Amino acid sequence: MNRKLRMGMVGGGRGAFIGQVHRMAASLDGKIELVAGAFSSDPEKSKLSGEDFFLDPERVYGSYEEMASAEAAREDGIDFVSIVVQNHLHFAVAKTFLEAGINVICDKPLALNLEQGKELEELVNKTGAIFGLTHNYTGYPMVKEARRMVQDGELGRILKVVAEYPQGYAVGDVEGEGSGAIANWRANPEIAGASNCMGDIGTHAHNLVKYITGLEVEELAAELTAFIPGRELDDDGNCLVRFTEGVKGIIYASQISNGDENNLNIRVYGTKASLEWYQEDPNELIVKFANAPRQTYRRGNGYLGSAAQANSRTPFAHPEGFIEAFANVYLAIAQAISDRIDGVEAPEGGYDYPSVNDGVAGMAFIKACVESSKNNAAWTKLDL
Amino acid sequence: MNRKLRMGMVGGGRGAFIGQVHRMAASLDGKIELVAGAFSSDPEKSKLSGEDFFLDPERVYGSYEEMASAEAAREDGIDFVSIVVQNHLHFAVAKTFLEAGINVICDKPLALNLEQGKELEELVNKTGAIFGLTHNYTGYPMVKEARRMVQDGELGRILKVVAEYPQGYAVGDVEGEGSGAIANWRANPEIAGASNCMGDIGTHAHNLVKYITGLEVEELAAELTAFIPGRELDDDGNCLVRFTEGVKGIIYASQISNGDENNLNIRVYGTKASLEWYQEDPNELIVKFANAPRQTYRRGNGYLGSAAQANSRTPFAHPEGFIEAFANVYLAIAQAISDRIDGVEAPEGGYDYPSVNDGVAGMAFIKACVESSKNNAAWTKLDL
Amino acid sequence: MNRKLRMGMVGGGRGAFIGQVHRMAASLDGKIELVAGAFSSDPEKSKLSGEDFFLDPERVYGSYEEMASAEAAREDGIDFVSIVVQNHLHFAVAKTFLEAGINVICDKPLALNLEQGKELEELVNKTGAIFGLTHNYTGYPMVKEARRMVQDGELGRILKVVAEYPQGYAVGDVEGEGSGAIANWRANPEIAGASNCMGDIGTHAHNLVKYITGLEVEELAAELTAFIPGRELDDDGNCLVRFTEGVKGIIYASQISNGDENNLNIRVYGTKASLEWYQEDPNELIVKFANAPRQTYRRGNGYLGSAAQANSRTPFAHPEGFIEAFANVYLAIAQAISDRIDGVEAPEGGYDYPSVNDGVAGMAFIKACVESSKNNAAWTKLDL
Amino acid sequence: MNRKLRMGMVGGGRGAFIGQVHRMAASLDGKIELVAGAFSSDPEKSKLSGEDFFLDPERVYGSYEEMASAEAAREDGIDFVSIVVQNHLHFAVAKTFLEAGINVICDKPLALNLEQGKELEELVNKTGAIFGLTHNYTGYPMVKEARRMVQDGELGRILKVVAEYPQGYAVGDVEGEGSGAIANWRANPEIAGASNCMGDIGTHAHNLVKYITGLEVEELAAELTAFIPGRELDDDGNCLVRFTEGVKGIIYASQISNGDENNLNIRVYGTKASLEWYQEDPNELIVKFANAPRQTYRRGNGYLGSAAQANSRTPFAHPEGFIEAFANVYLAIAQAISDRIDGVEAPEGGYDYPSVNDGVAGMAFIKACVESSKNNAAWTKLDL
Repeated sequence: MNRKLRMGMVGGGRGAFIGQVHRMAASLDGKIELVAGAFSSDPEKSKLSGEDFFLDPERVYGSYEEMASAEAAREDGIDFVSIVVQNHLHFAVAKTFLEAGINVICDKPLALNLEQGKELEELVNKTGAIFGLTHNYTGYPMVKEARRMVQDGELGRILKVVAEYPQGYAVGDVEGEGSGAIANWRANPEIAGASNCMGDIGTHAHNLVKYITGLEVEELAAELTAFIPGRELDDDGNCLVRFTEGVKGIIYASQISNGDENNLNIRVYGTKASLEWYQEDPNELIVKFANAPRQTYRRGNGYLGSAAQANSRTPFAHPEGFIEAFANVYLAIAQAISDRIDGVEAPEGGYDYPSVNDGVAGMAFIKACVESSKNNAAWTKLDL
Repeated sequence: MNRKLRMGMVGGGRGAFIGQVHRMAASLDGKIELVAGAFSSDPEKSKLSGEDFFLDPERVYGSYEEMASAEAAREDGIDFVSIVVQNHLHFAVAKTFLEAGINVICDKPLALNLEQGKELEELVNKTGAIFGLTHNYTGYPMVKEARRMVQDGELGRILKVVAEYPQGYAVGDVEGEGSGAIANWRANPEIAGASNCMGDIGTHAHNLVKYITGLEVEELAAELTAFIPGRELDDDGNCLVRFTEGVKGIIYASQISNGDENNLNIRVYGTKASLEWYQEDPNELIVKFANAPRQTYRRGNGYLGSAAQANSRTPFAHPEGFIEAFANVYLAIAQAISDRIDGVEAPEGGYDYPSVNDGVAGMAFIKACVESSKNNAAWTKLDL
Repeated sequence: MNRKLRMGMVGGGRGAFIGQVHRMAASLDGKIELVAGAFSSDPEKSKLSGEDFFLDPERVYGSYEEMASAEAAREDGIDFVSIVVQNHLHFAVAKTFLEAGINVICDKPLALNLEQGKELEELVNKTGAIFGLTHNYTGYPMVKEARRMVQDGELGRILKVVAEYPQGYAVGDVEGEGSGAIANWRANPEIAGASNCMGDIGTHAHNLVKYITGLEVEELAAELTAFIPGRELDDDGNCLVRFTEGVKGIIYASQISNGDENNLNIRVYGTKASLEWYQEDPNELIVKFANAPRQTYRRGNGYLGSAAQANSRTPFAHPEGFIEAFANVYLAIAQAISDRIDGVEAPEGGYDYPSVNDGVAGMAFIKACVESSKNNAAWTKLDL
Repeated sequence: MNRKLRMGMVGGGRGAFIGQVHRMAASLDGKIELVAGAFSSDPEKSKLSGEDFFLDPERVYGSYEEMASAEAAREDGIDFVSIVVQNHLHFAVAKTFLEAGINVICDKPLALNLEQGKELEELVNKTGAIFGLTHNYTGYPMVKEARRMVQDGELGRILKVVAEYPQGYAVGDVEGEGSGAIANWRANPEIAGASNCMGDIGTHAHNLVKYITGLEVEELAAELTAFIPGRELDDDGNCLVRFTEGVKGIIYASQISNGDENNLNIRVYGTKASLEWYQEDPNELIVKFANAPRQTYRRGNGYLGSAAQANSRTPFAHPEGFIEAFANVYLAIAQAISDRIDGVEAPEGGYDYPSVNDGVAGMAFIKACVESSKNNAAWTKLDL
């Protein structure tokens, strides 16, 4: 590829946090340029956002349908689209671009429900398009190192996994003193899907377990709670989990854990060793043994595996963070897209980015959480 | 009281860890002296232990029954006995001394099962003797500060509690490579009771929640697992918990969490603030807010509440640890015993030490865990 | 400014770490585009680098002199140049572009010696060009918050400052087992200047003190050491410091502190409170009081001052790191350049980026360190 | 020894912190009993303290001279005396007991000045009495592990040492708002000696370096400051240090470092590895390498050396603290005293407790600090 990849965006206009993150992640390495967008369903707002990003006005669209057909028709059309709209639109937008022959990067969760997810999966398989899902936390180098350690057997046989994702930003609304920190649409099942908290962040915890350990959730017993009065959807959820291979564990997520900020973390316990990783301190990976000093693996060092090294931009202790991890996901998807354009085969072992299949697993996880909780935390199998 | 309190001990001879801890806790402050003991059911071993502790040989007994009657008959007999035998003997030994009119300090868990626990409770009520249970983790100053903060409403309404007690010392036995780190008797339900892991350490986590928050467990859904082959009793347990007042939470304990040492910890989430405390870093208490800097309360400072201050021996950042916390439990029970001897009334609000009632609650917790787990983690109410 | 700023680069071709950092910092926010470069003194290498960055071959130059004149002559010439060459060339390159009327971003240290630094300072003043120096650690939001706290008097009167910058990457060379971790040119006074360690990283520590506290070093007593055999220049240095206003302190830097990675840190002690900041944990700022709980300010929160907030890209606990801090320096300089182009006045209080004056202060600091050390750590005043 | 050792105490009556620490340290392990004391120069106060400790009134004395002669004459006289009076009395009290043939445990600093220290050293050598100095921080198990690592060459050749002892408890007095946190006697050179801060706590940092590394200070350049108005003696001091074997370093101490509590810490940098230890987190020892994961050694584990294990009382992660470390110093001295009484030879390699020689080295360190500071931080050799 002797040029930058051309990126379009649907959603993510002025003031939208996640759109800006996608743009920073895309531009960080100088290999992708934003050239088109339908940033809002309001054409005027879309246009203003296009000006913010110094785009050619002709390629700033008032609707995603228009954008898909116009870009598909251009010689220099976009190589992929980034979808950063509300959950209920993921399906339609992704479908439109896939059918227009355009590769897709989609924000999580994949869709509004499991059925939509499976349909997208089929469509991806049928079209052969590249489809990446931004489970961005898998982009951290030390998460990749954790995965490598498990794969290489350094932990021995896995016995137990605990994954937590507590946030507290919505706690003000429990007593009615907050100002509605959880966006209204997230409380609306028709827009957000069947779960708010487990759907928005619980799926990150679920995906992180899956990525690092390769384990699937077989069944779970979930207790979801809406602490905020008047809310239909959960803002807190705790699950007992039975994974494949007899592994036991806990996954929980919360938006009312006062003072917690973005405290996604995971502990994986094996017969030979255990590991701990905290998203808020992402450059370190703690490894523990029964009869040896505790070890701290630190990003940027030569003793790390190849994935951790390849996904680092700076030397040790020049901290990398959220945007760099996000950019790693972008880079991996961009590589797949470049290869597709250049007719290059996928590397042995495949690409290292969250796929539509991960998205389907996430939808099944959400569905099982909601069903189990409705049945008083009865054990519920994942529909996979 | 113008003399030291006279202490006897049952169990805890040469090489017994917990007996030595009780003795150090008792002697630290110069207010208690060990004067008698039945340190082993083998009279010869008991005698040797007596020599280690420089005791009058006449007061080193070959059986606890003999000790109880002999000491009860002496003018200068013991003021209390410390019971540090295996779980299945707690009941008989405690009963014997209570019936001999002697105050009791008993190691946890209270007894072999809930029924025994309730019988002891009745006996304590009937005799009026002082009965203290060494849920020693409540002796830490910063745990007392945490309790004060909850009681004073500084956290607001409690929404969620997470208490963990992971240890990893037994993980070697999962693959049969260990040397039997969990004592054989702990694996035997006739000696240890219906649970090993939840009984031995899960009860500490349960008691810590109760002490700090005042909340009772209403019902729980528990999954206990014996990862060590051939073991009847659990070495790992995870519970979803419904507390009183609509509070939700998780309690878990483990002995196969590789590399974890003694990582008891608790997080209490309230509408105004939250707190975190880690037993391995006991001199600090972390307090978190939605919209203010995170705070770290540190032992030994003048800004702490009276209980935290009264239970400190050294200035700030002269670290105190496990033995000092244990000694705080001893001091509080010793005060109650002194007061009983001197005919002094209990202070308003009562004494601050774990009681036989706490022990009964612990037995009910263990029973519910075991029953729930047998019923595939069905919600099970505590029999209180 | 209704377009991206146009950036050129001198140095920083293939494989050069700091050049890549400058490019990532520039591109992160989508407001700057790299359009020209003289990436190497070898025209062929320069050309290859230009291809890596997808540049118009016509704007990839074989020498910086050629680039300065060609770009100055273009209608769409660069708005500024980033200079990322070895120390001894900073002066000549910067001078060339300043004289061509082009704004400059220059890597630190400013120049080879104090005299060159002062000449550049004069030239900047004379030309009115924007000149930014990448003392990048001042770009961290929590460093800006620290500065705000000092300025607002929240620490009271400053009494003592301790700033450290230990690294250990060169320790292998002390016993001759390393592979020359410190680049050869850094050991050569004709290329690196009079100091290696204090020049390369000690100046960062010095600048950080100056930025946060506003204090100047009045005099210092320095002991510089070359632990690596055969090296003329220091790889370790310790200074006692007397600052303005009677403040005492310590500044030290090291490249042989085994196992330390990039552990720049600062402690500022005042009569009302103190603060601590660690570059390796940059999203937190610790504030300590004599009689109140310790506080941790965390990036991304609404309770922070405006500079800390304006220099954040992600919400709390979505960690930001080295590149983002670097990008903040770029953004501030870019704003000054845009304003200059647009004819907009500087904001009241000026811009917040390291200037040529900071660079001169750094050169004076290096000079004093070297002189003091030669005089057996005699107190030496800064030549300012 | 088939009985407890008999201990007397001079000083340390009601309300005296350090006396209480000595008593707790002595009683913790059940091998020492307090039987006599001259707790105050006021006989009435001494008597009241004796009652607090349940002593035989006959053995509570109104003066230390009376106590020395009376106890020396008793069949069951004290085996040793603990001296916890103000600095200026250490010499006279120690001399009196040594001349009465009684072993001594003395609080640090050894004496009022170097001359007194050397005289005590001679007296100890002449009498053959056991003399222990409570440089208590050497009693921590992980400090002993650090020493072992250095002795076993695990760090390689030592290059640099940084030892800090910042406290902030006196900062209130800098602006005259405090209530005189530093005791008046500590500000009086006739009682405290030539230095307050370096004498009281700087000597702990100095001793810790010496204990762990075996290095002696050859010369130092010190800047002592009295920030508190009207004070003759220092409350802050910073030293550049040249140790034996070409090792460079920094030692500093402070009582005005706002918000620091008791933050004694040390970093030892060697060619193979480095270590860090923090008194406020004493159960951990951090070991760092150039090309390997960072390691944390934790007290109570089987992988530690014999000294660290022998000086632990509880299993891993049952935290030990200040009192236990202090008790380790007492235990080691008590062993020497027992051996002397029993006619047992000292073990090969000698006992592991701070000796009168350590005390003399401390006095020389204080003297050099004060002289250097008076000479504008001129390099000053230690008078050893």
